[in-house]
This record gives sequence, structure tokens and C-alpha cells, in this order.
Amino acid sequence: MSGTGVWLAGARGSVATTAILGALAVRAGLAERVGLVCEAPGFPDGGLPAVSDLVFGGHDLVDVPLLKRAERLADAGVVPHGLPARLRDDLAAVEADIVTGGADGRTRDPAGTLRRLVDDITAFRDRHGLDRVVVVNVTATEPPTPARPEHATLAALRRAIDAGTMVLPASACYAYAAFEAGCGHVDFTPSVGARLPALAELARERAVPYAGNDGKTGETLVKAALAPMFAGRNLRVGSWAGTNLLGGGDGANLADPQAAASKLDSKGRLVSETLGYPVEGPLHIDYVADLGEQKTAWDHVTFQGFLGARMTLQFTWQGYDSALAAPLVLDLARLVAAAHAAGRVGPLPELAYFFKDPIGTSTHDLAAQYDALCAFAARGCR
Amino acid sequence: MSGTGVWLAGARGSVATTAILGALAVRAGLAERVGLVCEAPGFPDGGLPAVSDLVFGGHDLVDVPLLKRAERLADAGVVPHGLPARLRDDLAAVEADIVTGGADGRTRDPAGTLRRLVDDITAFRDRHGLDRVVVVNVTATEPPTPARPEHATLAALRRAIDAGTMVLPASACYAYAAFEAGCGHVDFTPSVGARLPALAELARERAVPYAGNDGKTGETLVKAALAPMFAGRNLRVGSWAGTNLLGGGDGANLADPQAAASKLDSKGRLVSETLGYPVEGPLHIDYVADLGEQKTAWDHVTFQGFLGARMTLQFTWQGYDSALAAPLVLDLARLVAAAHAAGRVGPLPELAYFFKDPIGTSTHDLAAQYDALCAFAARGCR
Amino acid sequence: MSGTGVWLAGARGSVATTAILGALAVRAGLAERVGLVCEAPGFPDGGLPAVSDLVFGGHDLVDVPLLKRAERLADAGVVPHGLPARLRDDLAAVEADIVTGGADGRTRDPAGTLRRLVDDITAFRDRHGLDRVVVVNVTATEPPTPARPEHATLAALRRAIDAGTMVLPASACYAYAAFEAGCGHVDFTPSVGARLPALAELARERAVPYAGNDGKTGETLVKAALAPMFAGRNLRVGSWAGTNLLGGGDGANLADPQAAASKLDSKGRLVSETLGYPVEGPLHIDYVADLGEQKTAWDHVTFQGFLGARMTLQFTWQGYDSALAAPLVLDLARLVAAAHAAGRVGPLPELAYFFKDPIGTSTHDLAAQYDALCAFAARGCR
Amino acid sequence: MSGTGVWLAGARGSVATTAILGALAVRAGLAERVGLVCEAPGFPDGGLPAVSDLVFGGHDLVDVPLLKRAERLADAGVVPHGLPARLRDDLAAVEADIVTGGADGRTRDPAGTLRRLVDDITAFRDRHGLDRVVVVNVTATEPPTPARPEHATLAALRRAIDAGTMVLPASACYAYAAFEAGCGHVDFTPSVGARLPALAELARERAVPYAGNDGKTGETLVKAALAPMFAGRNLRVGSWAGTNLLGGGDGANLADPQAAASKLDSKGRLVSETLGYPVEGPLHIDYVADLGEQKTAWDHVTFQGFLGARMTLQFTWQGYDSALAAPLVLDLARLVAAAHAAGRVGPLPELAYFFKDPIGTSTHDLAAQYDALCAFAARGCR
Repeated sequence: MSGTGVWLAGARGSVATTAILGALAVRAGLAERVGLVCEAPGFPDGGLPAVSDLVFGGHDLVDVPLLKRAERLADAGVVPHGLPARLRDDLAAVEADIVTGGADGRTRDPAGTLRRLVDDITAFRDRHGLDRVVVVNVTATEPPTPARPEHATLAALRRAIDAGTMVLPASACYAYAAFEAGCGHVDFTPSVGARLPALAELARERAVPYAGNDGKTGETLVKAALAPMFAGRNLRVGSWAGTNLLGGGDGANLADPQAAASKLDSKGRLVSETLGYPVEGPLHIDYVADLGEQKTAWDHVTFQGFLGARMTLQFTWQGYDSALAAPLVLDLARLVAAAHAAGRVGPLPELAYFFKDPIGTSTHDLAAQYDALCAFAARGCR
Repeated sequence: MSGTGVWLAGARGSVATTAILGALAVRAGLAERVGLVCEAPGFPDGGLPAVSDLVFGGHDLVDVPLLKRAERLADAGVVPHGLPARLRDDLAAVEADIVTGGADGRTRDPAGTLRRLVDDITAFRDRHGLDRVVVVNVTATEPPTPARPEHATLAALRRAIDAGTMVLPASACYAYAAFEAGCGHVDFTPSVGARLPALAELARERAVPYAGNDGKTGETLVKAALAPMFAGRNLRVGSWAGTNLLGGGDGANLADPQAAASKLDSKGRLVSETLGYPVEGPLHIDYVADLGEQKTAWDHVTFQGFLGARMTLQFTWQGYDSALAAPLVLDLARLVAAAHAAGRVGPLPELAYFFKDPIGTSTHDLAAQYDALCAFAARGCR
Repeated sequence: MSGTGVWLAGARGSVATTAILGALAVRAGLAERVGLVCEAPGFPDGGLPAVSDLVFGGHDLVDVPLLKRAERLADAGVVPHGLPARLRDDLAAVEADIVTGGADGRTRDPAGTLRRLVDDITAFRDRHGLDRVVVVNVTATEPPTPARPEHATLAALRRAIDAGTMVLPASACYAYAAFEAGCGHVDFTPSVGARLPALAELARERAVPYAGNDGKTGETLVKAALAPMFAGRNLRVGSWAGTNLLGGGDGANLADPQAAASKLDSKGRLVSETLGYPVEGPLHIDYVADLGEQKTAWDHVTFQGFLGARMTLQFTWQGYDSALAAPLVLDLARLVAAAHAAGRVGPLPELAYFFKDPIGTSTHDLAAQYDALCAFAARGCR
Repeated sequence: MSGTGVWLAGARGSVATTAILGALAVRAGLAERVGLVCEAPGFPDGGLPAVSDLVFGGHDLVDVPLLKRAERLADAGVVPHGLPARLRDDLAAVEADIVTGGADGRTRDPAGTLRRLVDDITAFRDRHGLDRVVVVNVTATEPPTPARPEHATLAALRRAIDAGTMVLPASACYAYAAFEAGCGHVDFTPSVGARLPALAELARERAVPYAGNDGKTGETLVKAALAPMFAGRNLRVGSWAGTNLLGGGDGANLADPQAAASKLDSKGRLVSETLGYPVEGPLHIDYVADLGEQKTAWDHVTFQGFLGARMTLQFTWQGYDSALAAPLVLDLARLVAAAHAAGRVGPLPELAYFFKDPIGTSTHDLAAQYDALCAFAARGCR
């Protein structure tokens, strides 16, 4: 398969910039494939498009040049010093495919806004003669979306749009536009994205696959690895507390309690759902500007063993959010493109391995998710 | 199945005492089944003997009464205050089946020593009219055993024994006696146990199953849960350092560098074998008397992500060694007894989930080991 | 000096119970003096009343027997099993001096309520023929107290009381009653206590000393030791985040955001005040029931060194709140009694070593506070 | 005071390179004074030479250019990218004052070797017309030095040197040469340095001051801040275990157990000497190449509170060794120069604040050391 486009909603953000820079670096032979799940030794060849063949474009509300964004990430320690400058020409080429603007949940002309998104995506596909494009949402986390009757069916949604009522938040606009343009979709954020019945209907109508939500890149990844250990050993978890300290733009956005609510909800269910009983545990997301692009999570678990013995596990995870997320964006774009090519339609629960709050499954066991992913790739993403 | 005996080499040690006390407490309805793997909700019914039907006996070199040992464990916080006193009569009944003495690697009469061990085990089986007995080694960790030509074949081993040359360390004597008595065997320690070609031959000759080595009860358990996470995410682990602080008798024994060498070897291979490349990392086991029966492990992992981003994970595990090990001893005795009943002979790689250094497999992935264990139980331990 | 009484507001709480039990155990020769600051080797002899000479009484709203409270603390691991039973008679004697009831900020008869408190305290002093009594507040943390004009002068306060308007929260009632009864006062909580101009006036009028607020028993203690290290080394602290997990009654009370606000305010100023510049840092207090009587704090500090090098320090403190607080209650009662005897009047800034939010000083440097305390004791608490 | 030279033994090592680069950056207005103890707000003006007036030279066995060394440190995250290039000319000027070669404990011509060291230092002083020079040893840690009779008196030492017997290890050669050249001396390493009676005699003869040993830059710094907290609170420390993971050249050198022995000895005494009773605790220094220039220390402390309550404190320190050490080297050079100018002779116990194993005092209390340092500076380093 060749000619695969990746359309990034939030194309100048840290995650998107790192993903673009990384793919260009891999193509130029300047970076290894570390962090790319589908490039790990032994991962099944799923007929995915090559990393070096991906073509990038996207929307962003701001217009800071990609090169400048990449250099800021180098200053912050996320990507190597000097790499952005070496890829200056390649970044400039991508620059030409980034449209300033994007979804706006408060527009008075929803039909026009959505049409413009669709046009931007199809123009990108046509311009590069791509077989297909996958739209990936990496914009800032939205507050929880209140349910509305217009979300229930595609017909009701279209009526509202035609009547000039905007009932979709930005994340859902990108999903709508992706489906309408015949593209697969990935929501890497905890925002609502494609998770509305009306949008599920649209995806079926246009016969496209989609995946989400909320990339699993740190604390939740470790929790998903550890919670099954307690379950298997029949150790009774009494509490699981977590504190997440984040700098960077993601941290600043999550300093808004409304936005944090989406993320906390998505993070919080894993332990109880894995263990099968309620587990208390405060969970915090805090903005700490001094951390720059780093994030640090501390988790504290109390558990009871045989004859009531009381024990604890703590862990501290220190990482760069963008460096963890970016390769997963590339993995997901390739997997969804391959699923699209193989004829898959609707949600892809086999990609739960990548998400905190996976669509179409309630399995949070990391190893089981990994097995499902490998089986999916091994059968050609069918 | 009923009438299953558990013969504990090291019957008055902390692990054995906790296992015996716990089984008696479960039988008396005084304890929950927390920590027992085979009693977790959803674990397949493998036709195992019931915990409350197990009959205990064993060897120990010391003669401190079980009740006194149990009370010391209560003082140290391992088992509930008051529980030993409530089970006084049951403990006294077990007391009658503990033989003071046991294997001695320095005897001048190896044939006599081994015959005595076999006789003690068979007398116990006969006295209680048991269908079968599983011998479990929970004695102190031995130094590494130097290879000897007499270990290569059963014939050579028997010639040496008949000639009055003791070529087996204590742990191997218990395995020899178990097999000779027609019993299954579990080695819960990093000692050599049954891992000699001559003993494998004997197990086949007597058609008995066995499992080992070195129960996985803390740091290594967490490592086995986390290392596959790094592998799946294609994150490159640069170093994995570990410090283990242990009080109690186990800690005092491991303060001997010779004994610690066995354990360090058994702990050290997991990460490199799971990831498929060498990973540096100092690993320490230290005796800290002030910890009492507790152990604390701190692990520090450095890893590299996409575009070389450098990140770290740390964890601290604080637990009671005996509370973690004892239920696994009960699980293993039941599983090996069921396998024996089902006709399995030789090593049981399906029990790798329980061990740091599993016989018959090099899989260290905890989730894969758990799946193999469940499949084994689901097919009746065949 | 002899004949010193300690009147505990909240006499059946965990801290008071541990303090009483501990003093009785020291008197009976059943406990060492570990944790008592004034009993450390080398601490100056300040002419303090002996621990074993202290006489206890107090108020509490509940009437659970002290023995029962002490046994619960033993079950939770705070005090040794068996100790409460051995001191049964001594506890029963103290029981007779605990009055069920106490301050009530919502009474319609403030004058009567306050008179009753004063009467209870003076009756206790008379009954035992004590030279003096120190009143110590160890009741649950109150929400912040809104400022009122009646707090500004003693005259205004008395007018309000006489007019039947209750303008004092419970903590301030205990301070009022203490001063009115001619007693020294300690507020071990973050509640307002004696920190009102009207009460300062009353203390001067009655010539009594007082100290507070909010005993420093864990995270803040460690912060007070570490923050001066950063200052001295001229390392620039960028953030200092803290998460406090508490079980027990204190945790349950602090699960109320109103009550937690008092404590967070008292905890939060230390770092910035020590370093002399603002330091960001989220600070959480969470109730985790499964922790029982334990508390755990995790602090994460980012700092910058020479040429901008970015570094971090983390610590985890795991302790029993009551075991940490109780000996300080005894120290403080003895120190305030000695100061009273020596003629000191008003706030005692020399006792800042014991408090998160010390009255009369803004020094948070633990070593400087300790030096000031030792100097105070060395000059006979004058 | 002006015209102060700093002669660095090990001038191309990480610590020396960072110190030189940092001083040049401060002079050029390209760096703040963070990390410099004597530049902290409120630190007394001790009449020290200005950082920007220091003139650097030194010995090193290798001849990698300083610029290259500095760029490696930038790649490793210790110093800012781009800074070495901006200071290229200043670095080149220092380059001219670095002599390739230095002390060699195995020479057959000790008198010649020592004379050459003295000549190098005096030539540097003359070349720049400096008032005085301070020699600072920042070479690699040596193994412990066996005691020899020739170390006892200056006369015996000189006889041995004249007889062609080399009885001084390299660190002591630098001290000898410093004193012989009339220079103050600082030993920032755990090597023996000036700590021989014969050298103390020589320092008195030449009327020069000196300080050491072993800069306190991480784990030990934190221990020195925390141990007095336990002492003051009369909490009984049961164990204090520490694991130090180091990359870089220092880590590689300390991977040699002989060299590590010097450092462990210097680190190990603090806790027991501060608390006044023996405290168990394994202490490890491990080389972890993947850490690059970073070091990480984990300490685990068990302690007992009132009525025997068992509690723990853990901390993890993550820093860049050179960024922590380099400003202290500048502080020490300035303080020793000022002391020399003020007429101080012999060891300077007032500088204990900087050292793990301070000469001339056994005080390890960080706050007390800081007070002594401030008093010293306030009286003009007299």
C-alpha cells in the first residue's frame, strides 16, 4: 500500500510536530524506530503503509511555523538539538499542507464550517493523489460534551446542521468531516470525537473505520500493566491514588478543571473495571509550568495479601508526553489506513492497546490488548 | 480429589508457618482466600484438592513449636494477632507430623540419610491414608551448586550414593526423596533442587511431576508485569537497577554473598530475556534487620523513546515476604497434586507464573504465564 | 515543678488517646521516651514537669471509653498490642476526668457555654490540687473562620457574648476558657484557636502564655528540613508539589474541602517564605480510608542548578499521625507549663519548631527553630 | 582583592570544565549565579574575589580540548546548548594555561615530578601576575592510601622523596605542590589529598590554608539536612540504606571497588555520627552508563516513633553531578583565597558545609555547618 495521508487536527501542537518530525527523520535515516509499536522486533507484518511513505497535512488554529515549534521541542529536550534544522526543507514541504483554521464549535454556519473541513481534507488527498487519508485528532482536550437529542441519529444531526445550529464540539466536527470525506479517524484525546450515535451511523454509511479515545502514554499505561498482576495474584487492592504533574500546553489546558474532568473520567475507571470491585483513590492532574514538556506521575497502591497482610506499591513515571504520544499517532494512522484498505468499517476495538478509554471494548488488561493487536495485524488488519 | 498431603522441607520457617496457619484458618472459616491464585474469581476449576483438605507435615532442623513461630509472625505484623491462639489445637496436630532433622549435604552416610527422608514422607502418607503427597522445599537459599559428573545420570548418582559420597546439596536431597517416594515436588527456592539430569531421570522413572524454581513474590513479579510493557511499546530500556532490602531470616541468610549469588542469578535474567537485548543494571540484596519480616524493593529503569527522548520509571514495593509466598505454596501444592493425579510426569512449565526462574520455559512475560496457567487448570492439570 | 495538668480538648481522639496512653506507659516503665523532643539526649533541662507527673483530663463530644479507643489504635498498629490492657486501671482513672461535651460554636447561650468550660477546667485543677493546667486543642480541624468585628477587642467580644451572640468557633472557645481559667494554651490544629486580637488581649490580661498552630508531624516537617538546604545552596526551586493521603478520623475530616482549606493554607506558605520567592506547586490532602491510621505524603520538587541544569528531588513519608503528634503534645504541655511558671505571657514564638504555622514568627527553617527551642529551654523557658 | 588564580588538578574533567565554563559565562553576562553558595541573597560579603575575576589553569593527563569537553557536556544536558560556542575564545585562552601531565604516584623521580608541579603552578601565577592561587583537586577518586611511616613528619617525607621513593599518591602530590608553591589547597575528592601529618606540617611551614574532603553534592547533602531532623525529634533511626546510580566518568571510575571504598567510607559515617548511635544500612555506588552525566540516589530510612510505631522515609535525588559540584569549586576557591589573604593557616573547618568528610570537625549537621560558614564569611574569612 502506498499513498497514505495523515491529516492532523492540531497539526502544530507538540504531539503532531513530534510525529511529523519523527516520520521525516525516519525517512531521512536520521532516527531509529524506537517507540513505534508496529516496528518492534517480532510485530506481525500487517501490510501497513511504511512510515517513510506517510504524507502529512492538517488544521491548526495558530500559525507558528513547524520549524519553530520543532526547535522549541528541541530546547525542551523532547527531540534532538539540530534535528529540526537538518529537516528544514521537509518541514517546509509539510507546512504547505497545513491550513490555518479548523473546527469551531461556536460557528453560526455549521454547514459551511463542516464543508470547509471536508474540502480541506479532500483537496489534500487529491493534491497528493493519495489512496486514502486518516484524520487524527490531537487538539487540546475539551470539557465533557453534554448529551443532546441531535446526537442520537444522523438524520437529526443533519437537520440541526442544516438549520444552522451547531451541536457538535470541535472534536466531533473533525470526526464528522473525516467520515464525510471517506476517511478513517483516530481520536487521540479524551474529547467526545466520534463517540456519538449519529457519527457511528455516518461511519457505517461511508464505510470507514475509526479508533479512540485518549492515547495511553504514561500513568495509565503502567496501571494497565500492573492492575492485572494484582487480579491474577488475587491480591485485594484497597486504594489506588494517583497524582499527575504536567507542564507544557497539555498541562496548561488541563489546569482548567472542566477539561481535566474529561481526562480524569477516562483515567479513573481502569482499576475498578480490571479488578471487578470498587477501589477508592484520589486522582489529580496538576499543571506545573516548571516541568516544561515533561510529565511526572506518582501512583500509590495499598493492597491486602494472605491473612490480611497490608502492603504497598508506589511508582513514579517521568517522561516527555510528546515523545510517548507521537509514535503512537504514526502507528494508529498506519493501522487505521490498513484496516480501511482491508474493508473494515466502524470502531476498531483491536486498537484498545493504544487508548485509555477504548471504543468498543471494556478490556483494560494491557497484555490482552497487546495480544488482540498482534492478532489483528497478523490477519492483515481485517 | 481428597487426601492430599503437603510435606514442607523447612516446616518451621516463616513461609511454611504462614502457609500452614493460613490453610488452617481457611478451614476454620477464620480467613478469606485473598492471595490464593487458584481461588481468584474466574480462575478455572482445575479439579484441585480443597485448601481445607490439605494435610501438613515436614522436616525442619530446629524444633521451635509452630505456635511460637506463628506468634512471632503475629508480633511482626505478618498474620493477625490472636489467630495463632485460636488455632492452637490445629497447630498442635500439625506439630505431630513435623520431624526434627532433614537433609544434610555433609553426611557420611548419604544412602542412610536419603532413606530416612523417604521413610519420613511415606510414613506421613501412610499414617494419614493420603492419596498422594507433594514435597515443597522452603528451606533457606543455598549457595550455587558446582556441577559434578555424578549429576549427569541417575546411574552415576546412585553409584556415588552407594559408595558413601554425598554429591547432592540439601535441596536436591529433598527432590531425590520426593521422587523416590513417588511424590510430586516443588522447589520454592533458588537452590538447585530437582534441576539435575539425574533427578529428571528419577522423576521420569517414578512418573511424578515437579515445578520450580524460586517463588516470584515481589520485585520480580513487578518486573515480569512491566518488562513486556516496554517490549510491546518498543521503548528501549537502557538500564534496570534494583535494590532489595530484607529483614527476617531470609534476609539474614541472603546477607551471605554465596547464598545471595543464587538469588541474584535467578532474578537477573528476566529483563534481558524478555526484551531480547542486554540491559545493564546493578542488582542488590541487602539484609536490614530493622525491617523485621518486611521487604522493600526499589527499582529504577531508564528508557529511551521516540527520537531518543530519555525517560525513567521507578517503583517501590513494600511487603511481607511470607504473606506473599505462603498462598503460592498452597496453590503449587494443589496444582502439582492435581497434575500428579492427572498423570503428568516431569517438569511443569505451565507453572512458570509462580517462579523467578521457571523450569522448562524461558518465558518471563507475566500475562503469558498467567494465560498458560489458566489453560493448564482449565484442562484439568493434564 | 510538680502538679501539672493537661486538659485535652478532644480527649478521646487518636492523638489525645496516644498521648495519654504514652505518658501512662512511660510512668509505668513500659515505654521508652522515643519521639519526645524534650527527652532527647542533650536537650537542655528546662525545669519542665516530668512526663510521669502529668495529670490528664479533658472534653470530648463522644463517650467511647479510652480503653476501647486505645485498643483500636493497637489494632491499627499505632500502639503495641497488649499495652492498653496493661494500663487498664490508669486509663480508668483518667476516664473520670473526661467530661462528655465541650465547646459548641452554635450555642444560643455563649456565656453559659464558656462558663461551663471554665468551670470544668478549674474543677479539674482543684480536684487534683494542681499548680497549673495547660489546655491543648486536639479536636478536628475547623473550616477557616471568617473575620468579625467582635474579634478585634476583648471588650467587643465580651459584649457579643453577653448579648447571646456566639462569634467564636469551638477552637477559640477552648482558648477563651483556658485564658479565663488562668491556664496556658496550645493549639495543635490549624483552627483559629487563640489567633484573634481579643484573645491575645485576654491572655495578656490573665498573664498566661500560649503556642500554636498546627503540629508539624510529617510532610511539613520534612519540608522545613529541606527548604533551607535549597536556599543555602542557592538552588532555584521551580515547583514543590505535594500529595497527602490520610486515613483515620483526621483524613475523614479533611475530606471536607472546607476543613482541608485551613490545613492547606497552613502547609502552603512554608516553601515560598523560606526561599523568598514564589514557588508554584499543587498541594493535595486526600482521604484514603484503606490507610487506616497511616498517612503517606509524596513531595516532588523541581529545581535548577548552575547554568540552568534541571534536577528533581522526591520524597515519600509513611507514618502514623498519632504516633508522631502525641509526644509533641506532651512536650508542648510541659514547655508551656514551664513558661507559665517562669512568668512568660502571650505567644511563645520559641515553640515554632513544633508548628506548621507558628504564632509570633515567620521563621520556617527547622534548624533555626530547633536552636531557638533549645535556647528557650536552656534559659528555663523564660 | 583581585588577581586570584584557580589551578585545577583534573582541569579537563566534567567538574572542572563546568566550573571554568560557568565562571566565563558569568563574566560574559550569559549565566545567572544560581548554585553559587556565596552569591545567594543574604550571604555575607566576605571580601571574596569576584567570580568574574578568577583566572583558570591546571593539569590534566588527557589533552581533549576544553571546547570539545564543554560541547559533550551540552549534549549530555549539563550545560546549555550553544554556550560553549559562544565562549569559544575565552575557553581557548584558558586552554593555554592547562598543562598536559600532572602528578604520577608511580614515578621513579618523585623530586623531579613534584618540582615540575610546583614550577607549573608558579609559572601560571607569575605569567598572570596573580596575588595568589588556590589549587583544587578534582581528579578521579583514588583507592584508599595505606599508611606509611614516611607520612608522619615532613622531614621523613622529604627524606623519602630525596631518596627517590614515591610515597605519595597523586592527590597528595597536588597538595604537596600547592603548599610548596605557597598556595591554598582544596580537595574536592575523597582521596587522601592533604590529610597526612607531613602535609599539615608543610602547610603550617608555608602559612597556607586548606580545605576538604569530598564535595557534598547530592545524597549526602540531603542526609545532612535530614539526619538532624530525626535527632531533634528524638525519632530512633533503625536503618538508613542508600543506592547511588552514576553514569559519566565519575561513575566509571567508581565502578572500581577500590575507588568506591574511599567514597563509601566518606559517605557512611554521617548518619551514625549525627545521631550518636550505630545505624545499619547498606550503601551502594553503582555505575550505570545509560545515565550519562546524571546521577540518581535512592535512600530508604526506617525509624521508630513514640510507643514503637514503625515508619519510613524514602527520597530520590536526580541531578547532574557536574552542575552541582562546579559552583562549589568556585565558592571554595574564592573562600580559600580570601582566607589566605586574611592570614588563615592550616585546615578550615568552617568550610565543612561543602564536604562529606570535612577536615577539622566532625559536625555533619547541615544547618550548623551553614551557620559556621556564614559566620566565617561575615568576619572576613579570618
